[in-house]
Amino acid sequence: MDFKNLAKQYGTPLYAYDFEKIKSNFLAYKKVFQARKSLICYALKANSNLSILAQIAALEGGADCVSIGEVRRAIKAGIKPYKIIFSGVGKRDDEIKEALDSEILFLNVESNDELLRIEAIAKKYNKNARISIRVNPDIDPKTHPYISTGLSENKFGIEIEEAKKLYIYAHKSNFLSPIGIHFHIGSQLTELEPILQSAQKIASFTKSLIALGINIKFFDVGGGIGICYKDENTISLYDYAQGILAAIKGLDVTIICEPGRSIVGESGYLITKVISQKQHKNKHFVIIDGAMNDLLRPSLYDAYHRPNHLSQKCQKNTNDSKLVDIVGPICESGDFLAKNILLNNVENGDLIVFENAGAYGYSMSSNYNTRTRACEIGIIHNKAHIIKPREELDQLFENELEGLAIFEDILNSRG
Amino acid sequence: MDFKNLAKQYGTPLYAYDFEKIKSNFLAYKKVFQARKSLICYALKANSNLSILAQIAALEGGADCVSIGEVRRAIKAGIKPYKIIFSGVGKRDDEIKEALDSEILFLNVESNDELLRIEAIAKKYNKNARISIRVNPDIDPKTHPYISTGLSENKFGIEIEEAKKLYIYAHKSNFLSPIGIHFHIGSQLTELEPILQSAQKIASFTKSLIALGINIKFFDVGGGIGICYKDENTISLYDYAQGILAAIKGLDVTIICEPGRSIVGESGYLITKVISQKQHKNKHFVIIDGAMNDLLRPSLYDAYHRPNHLSQKCQKNTNDSKLVDIVGPICESGDFLAKNILLNNVENGDLIVFENAGAYGYSMSSNYNTRTRACEIGIIHNKAHIIKPREELDQLFENELEGLAIFEDILNSRG
Repeated sequence: MDFKNLAKQYGTPLYAYDFEKIKSNFLAYKKVFQARKSLICYALKANSNLSILAQIAALEGGADCVSIGEVRRAIKAGIKPYKIIFSGVGKRDDEIKEALDSEILFLNVESNDELLRIEAIAKKYNKNARISIRVNPDIDPKTHPYISTGLSENKFGIEIEEAKKLYIYAHKSNFLSPIGIHFHIGSQLTELEPILQSAQKIASFTKSLIALGINIKFFDVGGGIGICYKDENTISLYDYAQGILAAIKGLDVTIICEPGRSIVGESGYLITKVISQKQHKNKHFVIIDGAMNDLLRPSLYDAYHRPNHLSQKCQKNTNDSKLVDIVGPICESGDFLAKNILLNNVENGDLIVFENAGAYGYSMSSNYNTRTRACEIGIIHNKAHIIKPREELDQLFENELEGLAIFEDILNSRG
Repeated sequence: MDFKNLAKQYGTPLYAYDFEKIKSNFLAYKKVFQARKSLICYALKANSNLSILAQIAALEGGADCVSIGEVRRAIKAGIKPYKIIFSGVGKRDDEIKEALDSEILFLNVESNDELLRIEAIAKKYNKNARISIRVNPDIDPKTHPYISTGLSENKFGIEIEEAKKLYIYAHKSNFLSPIGIHFHIGSQLTELEPILQSAQKIASFTKSLIALGINIKFFDVGGGIGICYKDENTISLYDYAQGILAAIKGLDVTIICEPGRSIVGESGYLITKVISQKQHKNKHFVIIDGAMNDLLRPSLYDAYHRPNHLSQKCQKNTNDSKLVDIVGPICESGDFLAKNILLNNVENGDLIVFENAGAYGYSMSSNYNTRTRACEIGIIHNKAHIIKPREELDQLFENELEGLAIFEDILNSRG
């Protein structure tokens, strides 16, 4: 990618996504599961830009959604409703209703309480709700505690014993069709063993359900593999798929896989520009125009996104490199993008480009400090296109003007 | 506040602010400094809703801004430009230019590099830039590392020795007027001693500057006192002010104070509704319709916001209380609002109201998981008014539709 030209043309901070990479990552998932019926449901929460979803739709992908907003996005971008699943621990009644109306593939049920709410809503509107149950294999995924989800101390999933009761209940209900089973032990998984153990455990549970006459058709293995941000182990996608295929031997099910990070993560770059620099006693700070409102992961998870320094000049081979902290303009010490990074001859106006910023970058961004959210561009067939324009400052308070007028009246009249 | 009625009328999640509380908190600052000339510059980063700023303007307050977006907000809401200061480590050139054009009181300079950039811009447009320098007293504020800012390992401020050189340089420049001095050792301070030590150190430095003929008129003591979220010490505002007044004895300066959290923090409530509940082996989860995208502080800082349970029924005095985690619908384990809280007989539909949510609540909120940002209401003279309406889902992807159309064309024509 020609970062310098992109920065010049679109300004900074800028998110740039390589659509060829998104495509090849997606197709890799299709390929490893090709021995069986499979559906790759892209997890929108990683990055739900409509153009990225259109790329997934063009590859005949499905969508893993965690809010009705994500369901709407998926449909808007052309993903077929019968390829959309709706997951998440806190579905509101209105969300369940809209999901049923939208004729999506199924809802992933997270609790007994939720199952009963879905049944009641389906009954009220005389619908049949296709469901899957998220079963908690209680296996430690060995990832960051904030994104590990398969332990019983997490809010996700239902323990196997309870899940069995719910399947039997749903099977007897006139308004519920239990057609899937789901597990997901966490995001950014970098070890194979916990996934395989989980797949085996859930596959054997699935067999016991089928023996009871419950016709499970979809075996949803959750969110795909991790990516390498720094020097983590990564799992071979082939080994991952082989393990799952081995686990479901003898089961007549369609595999559903819900990768998000491993589809878009590597495809994305956050391009920023150096505004200023300062030296404290034993610290050198490189201050860029990107901040924690653009990319929260370093502050929130202590995550690493490799920064690449692009000088405006030809790089001289000097020994003038030093350890720096790369920080943003936001007024808190937690606003850093990278710490203790060795950089060479940084000058104001140089670019710093952060790697692997395609997932959980823009999607977690905010307007903190009244900063506009970045522009997003997509690069396809070697050409860049804006997929979300940079916000304009005045847009940020447009919908506060009506309230302001009311308050100014009150304050002026009564002090 | 009648939370039940507010939830009914405006829906949940809902931010509600008590404007009388904002007013009395603000006036308390004016009062403790009344023995001297003073200017209370409300720190917009805590909560920059225009109606809140209009309340500050009506009380003749000023504004502490950390982006040009915040400067625009302050002016829009009626705060006088000559009461606005612009701080922050990463001011872009276009921001400096607009601040000079807006004739604000002064810019708080954060580094040598920035001083030279401000001078160059003032020279280019033939302006005189009024400045203050943020001096780093290098005193440990004993607060959360992410919001402590006065240590030399933080990105903020300039060490005293270097600051002196910069003042002398600015004093000689035809385009710079060094009229202020500033220090700020951190947010949510709960101990008096570090602030007083800092004030004394900076006051004595100020005297040495005045002895050099540098006419410092504004003594900016930073961000005010902390608030009590749980059981922290709080500082008496009176003692705080007395300490500062004692430190500047003999100096003919206007005190500037920049409180944010202590003006709006206590005034705000985040009102949420229970969607669902689930019991794991040894954990009970109460799932509400508010999430980390609405209130990030528990996830980001492990912050505590006292949750109050409002049952739909009359509360019975049972012994049925249990320890629960209160979590949101977002798909990560880091999405919690409170952990290990003792609650009594929670039912779906009940309200959970989080206290002290007026500062760094809405201002840090995002659209993560394609969730709309909450509605904000202000309550004044016992009447509620919308100060920012709830976002609508379709608004969230409105500005992606143009990109979508382009990508759909490309994908359809070339696959």
